[in-house]
Amino acid sequence: MPSYSLGELARAIDARLDGDPLVEVSGVAPLDGAGPEDLSFLANPKYLEAALASSAGALVVDEDYQANGQNVLRSENPYLSFARAVDLLLPPPAVEFGVHESAIVDSATTLPDDVSIGAGCIIGPGVVVGSGVVIGPLCVIEEGTEIGDNSQLFSRVTVHRGTHLGKSCIVQSGAVLGSDGFGYATDKLGQHYKVPQRGGLSIGDDVEIGANVTIDRGSAGETIIESGVKIDNLVHIAHNVQIGKNAVIVAQVGIAGSTEVGESAMLAGQVGIVGHVKIGARARVGAQGGVIGDIPADAEYSGYPARSHREQMRAHALFSRLPELFQRVKALERRVRSKS
Amino acid sequence: MPSYSLGELARAIDARLDGDPLVEVSGVAPLDGAGPEDLSFLANPKYLEAALASSAGALVVDEDYQANGQNVLRSENPYLSFARAVDLLLPPPAVEFGVHESAIVDSATTLPDDVSIGAGCIIGPGVVVGSGVVIGPLCVIEEGTEIGDNSQLFSRVTVHRGTHLGKSCIVQSGAVLGSDGFGYATDKLGQHYKVPQRGGLSIGDDVEIGANVTIDRGSAGETIIESGVKIDNLVHIAHNVQIGKNAVIVAQVGIAGSTEVGESAMLAGQVGIVGHVKIGARARVGAQGGVIGDIPADAEYSGYPARSHREQMRAHALFSRLPELFQRVKALERRVRSKS
Amino acid sequence: MPSYSLGELARAIDARLDGDPLVEVSGVAPLDGAGPEDLSFLANPKYLEAALASSAGALVVDEDYQANGQNVLRSENPYLSFARAVDLLLPPPAVEFGVHESAIVDSATTLPDDVSIGAGCIIGPGVVVGSGVVIGPLCVIEEGTEIGDNSQLFSRVTVHRGTHLGKSCIVQSGAVLGSDGFGYATDKLGQHYKVPQRGGLSIGDDVEIGANVTIDRGSAGETIIESGVKIDNLVHIAHNVQIGKNAVIVAQVGIAGSTEVGESAMLAGQVGIVGHVKIGARARVGAQGGVIGDIPADAEYSGYPARSHREQMRAHALFSRLPELFQRVKALERRVRSKS
Repeated sequence: MPSYSLGELARAIDARLDGDPLVEVSGVAPLDGAGPEDLSFLANPKYLEAALASSAGALVVDEDYQANGQNVLRSENPYLSFARAVDLLLPPPAVEFGVHESAIVDSATTLPDDVSIGAGCIIGPGVVVGSGVVIGPLCVIEEGTEIGDNSQLFSRVTVHRGTHLGKSCIVQSGAVLGSDGFGYATDKLGQHYKVPQRGGLSIGDDVEIGANVTIDRGSAGETIIESGVKIDNLVHIAHNVQIGKNAVIVAQVGIAGSTEVGESAMLAGQVGIVGHVKIGARARVGAQGGVIGDIPADAEYSGYPARSHREQMRAHALFSRLPELFQRVKALERRVRSKS
Repeated sequence: MPSYSLGELARAIDARLDGDPLVEVSGVAPLDGAGPEDLSFLANPKYLEAALASSAGALVVDEDYQANGQNVLRSENPYLSFARAVDLLLPPPAVEFGVHESAIVDSATTLPDDVSIGAGCIIGPGVVVGSGVVIGPLCVIEEGTEIGDNSQLFSRVTVHRGTHLGKSCIVQSGAVLGSDGFGYATDKLGQHYKVPQRGGLSIGDDVEIGANVTIDRGSAGETIIESGVKIDNLVHIAHNVQIGKNAVIVAQVGIAGSTEVGESAMLAGQVGIVGHVKIGARARVGAQGGVIGDIPADAEYSGYPARSHREQMRAHALFSRLPELFQRVKALERRVRSKS
Repeated sequence: MPSYSLGELARAIDARLDGDPLVEVSGVAPLDGAGPEDLSFLANPKYLEAALASSAGALVVDEDYQANGQNVLRSENPYLSFARAVDLLLPPPAVEFGVHESAIVDSATTLPDDVSIGAGCIIGPGVVVGSGVVIGPLCVIEEGTEIGDNSQLFSRVTVHRGTHLGKSCIVQSGAVLGSDGFGYATDKLGQHYKVPQRGGLSIGDDVEIGANVTIDRGSAGETIIESGVKIDNLVHIAHNVQIGKNAVIVAQVGIAGSTEVGESAMLAGQVGIVGHVKIGARARVGAQGGVIGDIPADAEYSGYPARSHREQMRAHALFSRLPELFQRVKALERRVRSKS
């Protein structure tokens, strides 16, 4: 593990050091588990006491933190500065470029020299792989797909034909990109006929996709994931959905067909959204929210059916007081009756 | 891409042409993106204006649509006719029969000539594969399973021993068919002992199974998916569940053990159903509904705990009016008190 | 299939026989499908009538069951005794030890003789595999991981670096152990920067993990699954979560980062839990519950936001009576108004 002096680290992560520039750190740890060799951080005021009591060699903090004789690296965005420090202190495992001898690459695909293709991968014809790409073992990359520079796929990822993945993307293990959407026409007898799914999937740059996620191709046209979008594990995104730039989609969210999610929207865990609606830019939907209509930009929604989180919380508080309300109405009825 | 005259197309998809039989189309597109080379369709009256404004070469519509000088193909079921047209205009990628040299097929399995087995597949002994079957790369087909004629498995599908898959089924990538069910006996100390899961999984004809779906084998006896059932991505179906003919199960639904879902039932996204209940034929459960008891045939349920959708909506409307109700009760109390 | 006399079976599963010790059974079946060759069981009083009517060769029952002339095996814990009997009557498929010739094992890993490594597996350097381990086809076992004695991985499982799996664990197909957690620092422009996920994943003994489950590694430190935990299909467990001994986590549950789940807790299907909370030992959360705060030990919670199940049910009952309550308030208003 590399070791950095606080002086070096301050320069590298763009922070201001209050403390001894010669102290060295070589690891990272949570506030309460950190020792003198470790860097830790405080981004959530909830953990202020733990920060003050921490034995970390140094803390990344904001400008206002009152250090307790500790070495601190001050930053406007401590969590971001800490993230950069982690990259230095715990660099990712080294990657050797090359194509594993067991990988099967179609002769109609030419790979650059500076890529790493894992054992047992199956790469179809006409695939375009960018410089610096790393593909883990047992991935399936179908005919005519494109994987942009410096993207990384972990193990057992499928990239179906018609998929374009941008630069510097990360795809966790088991994800399926470009599966068929769920579309059927039903006859009078109730039998379902598959509507052929012949569209594509277009994913921008700097997108991360979690483990065992499924994203369907368009039925006609494309499913679109714009740059900077972050998608957690086990999320389902249906055909012809559009996800705007930098949106954040937490684990197990499901988004039905043709829905549009605006730029920097935030969908918490297990949210479900029906098809053909629009979620505005920067809108936020609380965990398990069930969205059945449009949501305006910047709104915060929750519940099922999802509506303004503030109203939802107010109604929920009153919901808890229903037993009391029934009592009060009963008392009123008794009183009114006794007077008549 | 093949091109069809409207005259040919009308005959092929069983529609009646109002327009120029010599006009040619070669693609499909949504109403607002279609050009003169494209076929589009109107099945949802919500998109009537888009249809009237569309520049598509032709539209598949119903008998009542008032065409705006457009070429239209009239059908009783425009979506179904359109689906057929898509199959003609955008045929699926051609498949070459044969067993990829990297596939590992047990010597105790004999494959017909007219099948396609993808790279890196692992096929156990005693597997019966029908004519016209297509199995994508890196699938695992365990001992003694059966895959009916013309079924297609995309990549990285596992078919566990004890599974029988019918004819003309489609299984999307990453699905697991026949995993162990979740059954434990617990002793006084709270330790759980696995109840061996030794049953099977029987899947009918024309079933589609989405990406990363999991369907458990029976514990004893079988889990049964009848013909014509359509299952979307990331659905979980537990041991000994029975799904009736032509049921539709949308993404991320979970169905607990031994529950029966009736013919042509419709479970919307993220629905959860407890074990050991019966969902009647043609019943519908709204998105995120949580079902904790039986549902009669033809009923429409929603919410948690799920109940009649109509009652649920009525109670939800009143739920939103709780703040008002509390105010009214407070006003009544004040008034009654002031009179005493 | 082996066959056992009831006398032998009683001894083997620690039950007391009321009936003919020479009767032989060779299979297991549900109460209503069992014939004279089958063993069945009664653990749920709901099925008492089916038990009385059953044609099973013998039933595993409790001490109080009034047998209807049937052969019964009496046990304090009939389900547990039945589970043992299933293991005898329907033994698991035999496993041949050895490393399949198509498996790729790094030269810096030494495997014991008594393990089974399936076709197409990719095993990295420095992997420690215990005695009796069975790994199904197309699994990826990354560098430096550990798999304890007698553990079994079904097909297409990924074990990422930094993962330690204990003894006698079972991992169903498609599971991903040790994927990157979902952590980003966001700058003023709304761009997200990945916080490197460099922690590990530690799984105890006797843990079962369902199909297509995803468990993230710690960001720093470890995600911890203690011994005896049972996890159903399609569950998501985020970075730095801790799951206590013998907890049971049903299908499609999602647990956000750093949350602690106590020993023997029970999370029903589709439950969601926010990050950084504590679920007490033996607490139970009902299906689809949405947990947004701590839950005390031994509590039973449900609903969204989750709270005491008893209160929840009471409020739900009143929720159903809202239409009536609105009527009653309206009647009161009319009456009070008419008197003024």
